[in-house]
Amino acid sequence: MTAVRAEIISIGSELLLGGVADTNSLFLADELLKIGIEVRWKTVVGDDPKDMEEALLHALGRVHVVLTTGGLGPTEDDLTRKVVARVTGRRLSLHEATVRAITQRLAARQRRITPDQATQALIPSRAQVIPNPVGAAPGFFLQYQDDRHNEERALMCLPGPSMEMKPIFQAGGGALLEAFVGKAARGTLVRRRLRTFGLVESELEARVKDLYAVERLAVLGLQAGAYGVDISITVQGRHPESADTVVKRLERLVRDRVGEYLYAAGDQTMEGVVALKLTAKGLTVALAESCTGGLIGQRLTSLPGSSAYFERGLVTYSDRAKMDLLKVPEALIRRNGAVSAEVAQAMAEGVREQSGTDLGLAVTGIAGPSGGTKEKPVGVVFLALADKKTAVGRRHLFSGDREGIRFRASQAALDLLRRHISGKAIE
Amino acid sequence: MTAVRAEIISIGSELLLGGVADTNSLFLADELLKIGIEVRWKTVVGDDPKDMEEALLHALGRVHVVLTTGGLGPTEDDLTRKVVARVTGRRLSLHEATVRAITQRLAARQRRITPDQATQALIPSRAQVIPNPVGAAPGFFLQYQDDRHNEERALMCLPGPSMEMKPIFQAGGGALLEAFVGKAARGTLVRRRLRTFGLVESELEARVKDLYAVERLAVLGLQAGAYGVDISITVQGRHPESADTVVKRLERLVRDRVGEYLYAAGDQTMEGVVALKLTAKGLTVALAESCTGGLIGQRLTSLPGSSAYFERGLVTYSDRAKMDLLKVPEALIRRNGAVSAEVAQAMAEGVREQSGTDLGLAVTGIAGPSGGTKEKPVGVVFLALADKKTAVGRRHLFSGDREGIRFRASQAALDLLRRHISGKAIE
Repeated sequence: MTAVRAEIISIGSELLLGGVADTNSLFLADELLKIGIEVRWKTVVGDDPKDMEEALLHALGRVHVVLTTGGLGPTEDDLTRKVVARVTGRRLSLHEATVRAITQRLAARQRRITPDQATQALIPSRAQVIPNPVGAAPGFFLQYQDDRHNEERALMCLPGPSMEMKPIFQAGGGALLEAFVGKAARGTLVRRRLRTFGLVESELEARVKDLYAVERLAVLGLQAGAYGVDISITVQGRHPESADTVVKRLERLVRDRVGEYLYAAGDQTMEGVVALKLTAKGLTVALAESCTGGLIGQRLTSLPGSSAYFERGLVTYSDRAKMDLLKVPEALIRRNGAVSAEVAQAMAEGVREQSGTDLGLAVTGIAGPSGGTKEKPVGVVFLALADKKTAVGRRHLFSGDREGIRFRASQAALDLLRRHISGKAIE
Repeated sequence: MTAVRAEIISIGSELLLGGVADTNSLFLADELLKIGIEVRWKTVVGDDPKDMEEALLHALGRVHVVLTTGGLGPTEDDLTRKVVARVTGRRLSLHEATVRAITQRLAARQRRITPDQATQALIPSRAQVIPNPVGAAPGFFLQYQDDRHNEERALMCLPGPSMEMKPIFQAGGGALLEAFVGKAARGTLVRRRLRTFGLVESELEARVKDLYAVERLAVLGLQAGAYGVDISITVQGRHPESADTVVKRLERLVRDRVGEYLYAAGDQTMEGVVALKLTAKGLTVALAESCTGGLIGQRLTSLPGSSAYFERGLVTYSDRAKMDLLKVPEALIRRNGAVSAEVAQAMAEGVREQSGTDLGLAVTGIAGPSGGTKEKPVGVVFLALADKKTAVGRRHLFSGDREGIRFRASQAALDLLRRHISGKAIE
């Protein structure tokens, strides 16, 4: 009993240059997993019909479900529908309802449909159109019998811009694949991600290692990054319910071993968890940032409704800003340096008092690449958190480049806030 | 005359889950381009020996240079060297110098080499070892004759963690590929990216469309994103010098057409350009951010040496913070709303006066998803920039989700700063 296997093909020459990351496939991999489809391959190919054809043929030969993104627009570069028609032996014809939808879209902006725009309504025969709620080009879905493997295959083509791809998938694409998976009845795959911060990979592995063999059909994986170490639990099974039961059982065991280092599960982020906790307790926070330059504020305000708990953030980059805005005494900076536990604490207390919030969170450190000393090397970061009664501090030494150090500092600061709200101090 | 073609294979099951983006291939695509190698395919495959073998065979069948990242560590999951040995028909043997290097690395930390760690010194016969300056597992490089195509192929295997992969490539891998390209003498490929902000894709296309046909061997491409629209110029040629001449000629023509909308070239970012301009003119800036929550501060301080021009940033999220910290009159907020041209201007003037910097930059807007009205819908953003004499303002309406609106607002704010320093106002 194996899960339905998928390949995601991202089409677009710009994805082969250095600057542009393919983020569509991250979204789709997540969505496919939710409906029990396992992504086994990802391929990126340019707008070249020969390469595209080769990619499609390889994919249809090795997986059950193939998703493509890109190449459905109105320009000459957009070749996906032609290549799909050739590979699957179908004819392209104009889809009347799509022509009408595009015409209406343009009419609303006082424009007429051009022949180029009409090509976006060309759909392979017997394919199902998946309407585009926000743009012109729809997606489409077709199933066909693969003679080489005597198995049914599904192929879904979606536009490249993620602002259109995501709503098309959510409004119609996902349901079509779910129906296909139900019909295929090849078993299911359930995955759960648990996110930890504060342990390095080997420490975490030592805590959960004996769980690797607890369940026969389960696989535990660790993935380290700047955000911490994630644990993924993957279970294959015949029924979603039974696989889910195994995942839940393992999750409880992992949670027991990892304790308060576990900060989130699934798609949750550290800032998302902190926002929920602040909102639930009706607490407000103010920030005093130095080396992170506004990153913590940006993360805490990335969620809708953040004005309920976020009052202000002061990026006091210069010593003068620390003295003027946070009332950090000049003598304290002169004695200990701007990067010190004492100044971090004064910053946290200063911003809390000034703003009248429940909590004040401060960070000061050396993000590098220069500015380090023997006592305070690049990567040293002091955090402090003040409430109405007291202030706590932490010293960290992070590795990595400037960007990595700054991100880790923001993650550690948010984790300090998370633990404080939960009433769980860091050992 | 075509360029040497490459495929990048990223190995690791975690890359097939939703959360983890493959960023190694972005770095490598950039580096390969610099030495005239064109990336035609990217493949992501899990830690499955059968899938890995299939990926390698496909790649070696269709390109001249194959790069793999991942699967070179000491654990059971790390299968790259075994699969490479099988596919290329080579034997694995222990590389003495690498064993010594790993032993010394561990000795420095009072530890002994284990059999697992020693597997990292297993190298296919006649492969060249590329030393790892920062970790245990080295990379390796091998060339062999592909019988199916009667052509020479190059295969380079690098570790997955980018902190090790990048230095290995930079210290040794790149030079080996350069030598291979020189030997292959299949021509070269030069690419140049020019970055614009303030024009939509169709407006930009109208300005440069007639340049598409100016040079026979050149291709112009447009790529739109939250940062603006990039133009890429790609030229194939026999010699790097002649291709470079064509690129430069086209670049001049594009610059003429695009004027001040062009903000950067190559790897430069908007914040990088602004930082250079501020430093060159010895100017300082202070920020007052509302809807961007600290994002502009984070971007302006992402560069080493940012304390030379960045003095402070105030994330005045609440009305009270705007009044307390920036001296925005309460009556002004009541009359116009916190999201208004008047308040943006008062914020810019307030932060500049308070901090004593040359410039004050302010942003206030509605990032959504809720909070919009008919007059001020979600996506409306007011910017203001104050110097010692005067203040200028801009109203924008951005589309996208919360993250997209916030990023576009930060990009527009930095662009306003860039144009002001250059003395070029926005039409």
